[in-house]
Amino acid sequence: MDAALDVIADHGLAGLTARRIATAAGVPLGSVSYHFDGLAGLVREAFTRHAEAMAVVFRAHFTPVPDRAAMLEAAVEFVHGEAGASRRDWVVAYELYLAALREPALREITEDWLQGSRDVLQRVLDPDTAQALDGVMEGLTMHAIFSTAPPAPEKTRAVLARVLGLDR
Amino acid sequence: MDAALDVIADHGLAGLTARRIATAAGVPLGSVSYHFDGLAGLVREAFTRHAEAMAVVFRAHFTPVPDRAAMLEAAVEFVHGEAGASRRDWVVAYELYLAALREPALREITEDWLQGSRDVLQRVLDPDTAQALDGVMEGLTMHAIFSTAPPAPEKTRAVLARVLGLDR
Repeated sequence: MDAALDVIADHGLAGLTARRIATAAGVPLGSVSYHFDGLAGLVREAFTRHAEAMAVVFRAHFTPVPDRAAMLEAAVEFVHGEAGASRRDWVVAYELYLAALREPALREITEDWLQGSRDVLQRVLDPDTAQALDGVMEGLTMHAIFSTAPPAPEKTRAVLARVLGLDR
Repeated sequence: MDAALDVIADHGLAGLTARRIATAAGVPLGSVSYHFDGLAGLVREAFTRHAEAMAVVFRAHFTPVPDRAAMLEAAVEFVHGEAGASRRDWVVAYELYLAALREPALREITEDWLQGSRDVLQRVLDPDTAQALDGVMEGLTMHAIFSTAPPAPEKTRAVLARVLGLDR
């Protein structure tokens, strides 16, 4: 699975082959074919594994947050730390998003991931605010990753304070 | 260019070859090689063209907005209309995001696109609110696309009203 994610990170989902997985894992080609029931099942398992790994980081970051004010600081940190994920992790996540666009069956994985994030945020937020904050963090993180001039943390704090209703 | 974007939509950037472009465009292979200075230049031009097409839709939607209250309604419509783009358009956009993650030189294209969007929103918003709204719409649109249970428009309106400072 880890080898499959490495191949996806390097070559894209379109470049995922049993041969490349075998090379990356340092195992004979036959053992890749033996263990997996076709590439589609492997892709699903590999993306599920990746989403769970991203979710573990999310939970570790947000579960200890005691209240709404602390949530603001945790969210600012999260956006500006690129959500605790490496560039490679984001590449694989975007490969998953793309795959889910092309293949609706994979949206179970993205949906579980979304729902898991919201559940964590709902420890201190009402469901609507949790959903809103999750969407806002997604967009701000994305723009922070792609922009050649990422926004200053204090601007992110101002936006997130509005979303959390902490600006009055 | 259009043929190249079709190939990217169907096969991913990793599946883009001069042969597939020629087939999609219905021209001889030689004429693809003749017109383009290698695949990297072609990818850059094709993505630039796609970003500009997405930007035209964005400008058409937001340029006529007269004030902040109307901006709220326009933004809700935009998110729930998946930003006026087809599923195919989003697939190509995410291929661009991914390519920009892998190749920093392509971030000029995503950055121009971001800046163009903000300029339109700044016709009625201060720069910070424009940047915030753009990031928020990106995340909410993404979650609306990927979720198997997209949020109700009135929830999106509530979030965007907070971001726009219209909730008091």
